[in-house]
Amino acid sequence: MPKFMDVHSGFVGVTEEQLREAHERDLAIEEGEGVHFERAWLDPESGKVFCLSSGPSKEAVLRVHDKAGHPTAEIYELPIEVE
Amino acid sequence: MPKFMDVHSGFVGVTEEQLREAHERDLAIEEGEGVHFERAWLDPESGKVFCLSSGPSKEAVLRVHDKAGHPTAEIYELPIEVE
Repeated sequence: MPKFMDVHSGFVGVTEEQLREAHERDLAIEEGEGVHFERAWLDPESGKVFCLSSGPSKEAVLRVHDKAGHPTAEIYELPIEVE
Repeated sequence: MPKFMDVHSGFVGVTEEQLREAHERDLAIEEGEGVHFERAWLDPESGKVFCLSSGPSKEAVLRVHDKAGHPTAEIYELPIEVE
């Protein structure tokens, strides 16, 4: 299953609780699109959020975010990963 | 230890082997800065690379990338993470 990183802007000053609530809205509906959001990281100073997910397509990932109320257009497919 | 995400551009068409080689240049010298690069993901179509690390500061992380030959100026501290 392809992995993806999507990026949100504008989350300046958002708290851990607020990020968790937003992430849980994704988790609650992701199954309908065959998507799984693995982790999300927030820099509350710049307002950037990075979400790592797996799913069938970019469009499926973005549909979950749309339906959960935090749309973004910035997403990258990640066929290559090293550690 | 704070976590960071840094972003590189211009890696269009880079292979897994090339990314691994670049990542290993970071791993070989990271200890001198007290940094650890956990994972790196590449979208070879757009040329974006995302590196997840931990370390004492943004500057320390960027110095490792500088010395390894793949500098970037785009880095975010990630005090908040959910899964």
